[in-house]
Amino acid sequence: MLKTPYLLFLGDAPDALAAKVAQGIRDWRPEFCVGQLRLEGCKADLGIPDMTIAQARAAGAKTLVVGAANRGGVISPSWLATLTEAADAGMDIASGLHNRLTALPELVGTAEKAGVQLFDVRVPQHDYPIADGKKRAGKRCLAVGTDCSVGKMYTALAMEREMRAQGMKATFRATGQTGILVTGSGVPLDAVVADFMAGAVEWLSPDNEPDHWDLIEGQGSLFHPSFSGVTMALIHGGQPDALVLCHEPTRTHMRGLPHYSLPSLEALRDLALETARIVNPDVRVTGISVNTAALPDEEARMCLEEIEARMGIPTTDPFRNGAARLVEAL
Amino acid sequence: MLKTPYLLFLGDAPDALAAKVAQGIRDWRPEFCVGQLRLEGCKADLGIPDMTIAQARAAGAKTLVVGAANRGGVISPSWLATLTEAADAGMDIASGLHNRLTALPELVGTAEKAGVQLFDVRVPQHDYPIADGKKRAGKRCLAVGTDCSVGKMYTALAMEREMRAQGMKATFRATGQTGILVTGSGVPLDAVVADFMAGAVEWLSPDNEPDHWDLIEGQGSLFHPSFSGVTMALIHGGQPDALVLCHEPTRTHMRGLPHYSLPSLEALRDLALETARIVNPDVRVTGISVNTAALPDEEARMCLEEIEARMGIPTTDPFRNGAARLVEAL
Repeated sequence: MLKTPYLLFLGDAPDALAAKVAQGIRDWRPEFCVGQLRLEGCKADLGIPDMTIAQARAAGAKTLVVGAANRGGVISPSWLATLTEAADAGMDIASGLHNRLTALPELVGTAEKAGVQLFDVRVPQHDYPIADGKKRAGKRCLAVGTDCSVGKMYTALAMEREMRAQGMKATFRATGQTGILVTGSGVPLDAVVADFMAGAVEWLSPDNEPDHWDLIEGQGSLFHPSFSGVTMALIHGGQPDALVLCHEPTRTHMRGLPHYSLPSLEALRDLALETARIVNPDVRVTGISVNTAALPDEEARMCLEEIEARMGIPTTDPFRNGAARLVEAL
Repeated sequence: MLKTPYLLFLGDAPDALAAKVAQGIRDWRPEFCVGQLRLEGCKADLGIPDMTIAQARAAGAKTLVVGAANRGGVISPSWLATLTEAADAGMDIASGLHNRLTALPELVGTAEKAGVQLFDVRVPQHDYPIADGKKRAGKRCLAVGTDCSVGKMYTALAMEREMRAQGMKATFRATGQTGILVTGSGVPLDAVVADFMAGAVEWLSPDNEPDHWDLIEGQGSLFHPSFSGVTMALIHGGQPDALVLCHEPTRTHMRGLPHYSLPSLEALRDLALETARIVNPDVRVTGISVNTAALPDEEARMCLEEIEARMGIPTTDPFRNGAARLVEAL
């Protein structure tokens, strides 16, 4: 669990996309963000106050979150001075990048002296149990996709926000590094050892109040040969009551695999239901979330209407239209 | 890859079952075994020559394999003197037990001095790639089960032996620690990090001659909530051309999960085919392997006949009747 609030570190991000992790935190957890710290040359801007380390500390910031990536998704050597200054000033540091904070000797030394923690959120922080498959109290919704990177995290976060706005009890459960940085906790599922994947998901989504919903962030796809095992562990560890199908209608092949075409939404619905029923016979597909960002307005509207008519399930793009229909369907 | 031949270390195994790993090596790779080493009190016997370390070295043994487990599946402190003596004599040591050889400082020191290697086969020895899902040359057969521990490894090993006896090109591909010790190489799949599971299976079963068959050892079950993700990675990484369904007809619930009943063979067939077709549209279920060890002869015969009539696929118990019918069906 990361200590909040955060100072968001944008480094020398060459554009807004390079700072998308910071933008995600700003969008979904604005209450966690006291300010941003940008180095010379930074072209990203979250529209929150620029602060030095000292100013952020004075404003109560407890963790500096590395919210940008340079080429290769690694921590840039030019960032080290700032990270070390933050540690020296008593702030924890959190990063989801490939090279680890704990592999930077200067930073480790400073952190030890200052008594602060370095969180590499790609690295599992717990010994997870082996799943026992037992029914847990409370409700769970899992986003499953026709492919990787079709908007599963966005869908779950948008549903959580809508549910909370309606006064419902809802918790987003992060299973990837971006989701963990956004919400401050979770399981980096793709880095968990195979035997413990499903157990990690059970651990992440424990017994809860009967009317509480966990919105579990999906990973991979049952139809993506590289990562389908991770998806299967999410379905069986998550024991979903509700499945939301996620889809990107303009994609021509599975992400990273030009030789694999996307499954139909019907095929995803059937296989996801069949596998989820093993752990919860009452599971239902409640909605469809379509990422229509690549389509103009009119085409997006027609695409959503066509899918909803064909599948007979509430269908929306939560980014364009909000998640209310997906929540209503629960 | 472990160096052969082996000296099989049985320790003070209290019964034959405690030495089942050694028995497996003796059964499936007798040509690897120069002898056995038993400590005082050992009640297991493989029926091969008893040897001291010195005798085994003189007979050419290159690796001492820990082929027994005491309670808890750990390396017993009373074994350390023998293991250290073997290392000192120039033999590699291999173990599939929970506590690691490399965590025993005295043994590590001796091994370093003697220039020998310690193989903990539960620990992945490679950096596996992320799966790319590309079609590979050669044929692959995967054993999938209605549950864990229903005879998948035995089935694949029996098929490999039968195929080699018939002059076919066949290689058993181990995915668990026992299989790795039996055959000297493989991937400890349940210890691989989630993102790399399917890639590890691709790595294990590379391009081969068009008429060569890999017999890939199965793990877990699509219907076992604790381990289904591992099974899914085997199906998508393995790209099987043929699936053999494995079943234990007297089991009343999923292994370790009294609250889960077993799926029918029909359900296993359908879900295994549906998931395997994602990577190989031509995959077929070619045979059924039934572990009838718990049934008397006549009941076993009737059980096999009933299943074969119901499913319409060659059905046998390879332990009782050999694997010829499963091989013929390929």
